[in-house]
Amino acid sequence: MPQVQQVTAVGSIALDTLNTPFGRVEDALGGSISYIGAVGGLFAPINIVAVVGDDFPMDEYDFLRDRNVNLEGLEVAPGETFRWEARYHDNMNIRDTISTELGVFEGFQPMLPQAAREARYLLLANIHPSLQLDVLEQMHDPRLVAFDTMNLWINNARDEVEAVINKVDLVIVNDEEIALLTGEQSPLAGALELTKMGPRYVVVKKGEHGAVLVSHDDLPFLCPAFPIANPKDPTGAGDTFAGAMVAYLAAVDDIGTFSLRRAMVYGTIAASFTVEDFGLSRLKSLTTGEIEERYRHFRSMVEF
Amino acid sequence: MPQVQQVTAVGSIALDTLNTPFGRVEDALGGSISYIGAVGGLFAPINIVAVVGDDFPMDEYDFLRDRNVNLEGLEVAPGETFRWEARYHDNMNIRDTISTELGVFEGFQPMLPQAAREARYLLLANIHPSLQLDVLEQMHDPRLVAFDTMNLWINNARDEVEAVINKVDLVIVNDEEIALLTGEQSPLAGALELTKMGPRYVVVKKGEHGAVLVSHDDLPFLCPAFPIANPKDPTGAGDTFAGAMVAYLAAVDDIGTFSLRRAMVYGTIAASFTVEDFGLSRLKSLTTGEIEERYRHFRSMVEF
Repeated sequence: MPQVQQVTAVGSIALDTLNTPFGRVEDALGGSISYIGAVGGLFAPINIVAVVGDDFPMDEYDFLRDRNVNLEGLEVAPGETFRWEARYHDNMNIRDTISTELGVFEGFQPMLPQAAREARYLLLANIHPSLQLDVLEQMHDPRLVAFDTMNLWINNARDEVEAVINKVDLVIVNDEEIALLTGEQSPLAGALELTKMGPRYVVVKKGEHGAVLVSHDDLPFLCPAFPIANPKDPTGAGDTFAGAMVAYLAAVDDIGTFSLRRAMVYGTIAASFTVEDFGLSRLKSLTTGEIEERYRHFRSMVEF
Repeated sequence: MPQVQQVTAVGSIALDTLNTPFGRVEDALGGSISYIGAVGGLFAPINIVAVVGDDFPMDEYDFLRDRNVNLEGLEVAPGETFRWEARYHDNMNIRDTISTELGVFEGFQPMLPQAAREARYLLLANIHPSLQLDVLEQMHDPRLVAFDTMNLWINNARDEVEAVINKVDLVIVNDEEIALLTGEQSPLAGALELTKMGPRYVVVKKGEHGAVLVSHDDLPFLCPAFPIANPKDPTGAGDTFAGAMVAYLAAVDDIGTFSLRRAMVYGTIAASFTVEDFGLSRLKSLTTGEIEERYRHFRSMVEF
């Protein structure tokens, strides 16, 4: 059996106000790191690196401590926690941002504790690419570095985004981001283009349509999404996908083709739980048994 | 070995003028039946039932005769063949219809020759639902009836569409049509709803995102699309999907779960060839060897 490795995840923590056709929640625990910690911790130990304000309801994070998540790298800074409000359309693939108040996140300077620096698996969630470069320099010798970003940075800090991409192993982006990055309309063509910029692997997330893994040296892997008939809130689906994917790789400590493929399947399954309820609600009670059950279902739904 | 069964396919034949970001063709062979015949004939004998005008360039259909397609049910009526012009956006999932001239298709009254009536597999391609009902009455004893339609009929002849749906075994629709038919935003929820209206199986086509098979009594089948990095023209992809799917079922003469699933995989592979070039261009030279090669590739791209 391989030894389970640690993951370091650097990103944002926010208090989200979410409006979907199925309801509204206010100041719910959110930000990429909340989702990554909640699901990743079910697979492998996660060192989170993020900042919150001194108004942050820290007791709501208690369930993370019980779940293999090391909060040592969680900085509490004087000021307000990052707040974000969004409204989803009836077609929940479309959402409008209503307000963004960065609070203490604006001055975030990731400082990695020793354990975080020594982790073999690093997930650079969506933060400014210059901070991502800074984190990379603090790491000792990661075996796999995974990377997420957003349109804002691709448009406003393109050179730095490209500098990070050049240094990472696995890029996890959605189809819009890949079109912006490469100018290719076809996600597959865009992903192939992106592998020429440095990373060995590119995962294109397509939301309810699943994800595709593209690499230099292998056929693509076509991963459908685990179907959920009545999703309530898509927030965090992409983050849980990435979190479960990287944490699974750390758990098996392998980045071969089939481990990467299985990691994606666990990613889509983690995301399927996320969208079933608002914010982190479903993930709080999620068990590894439930994940494994859905994994078996997924296999039955793709056999032919 | 099962005996290969015959397919009857009823639908439209048109001369298409197609504008995509990759070029333009004028008066190219099109309409559902051209696509269904071209690809279905590689799997099983196809009896086509359609109408063309006396201006139709019949010699362009010679390749169908060499491909197991029985043209006995092809009526040549005095007047003009159905003509359609469309322009695709840079995102080829969106297209505008520029003109529609129904010509002889407007007075189409399907009359099935004896062989067509006796076929065990029937594909009702997109025509007015009252004509589909009429075809159903002419059939002797089909084992499987598959059905396609379009938004126009769902909006304008809803009762008749529902009457046909009630009599068929397999509904093949896209996500927009299923939302219109059932009022469900989620294709999966919509498909489950549709199985309550009569048909045992519902296939939701999602274009480049693949397709999903839903039934009363089984888990869904999640079928990704065979990826094509640089599609040139999406016209006919849905028709080739349906044509290959039904013709494969006729070839194995089985409608069990795994035959249905494999039929969908052949459907997405047939569609992947269609979009590689304009109109029927790629399908004219297509061989069963090429289809089987892509089927093996597909298996490698979904294993995990």
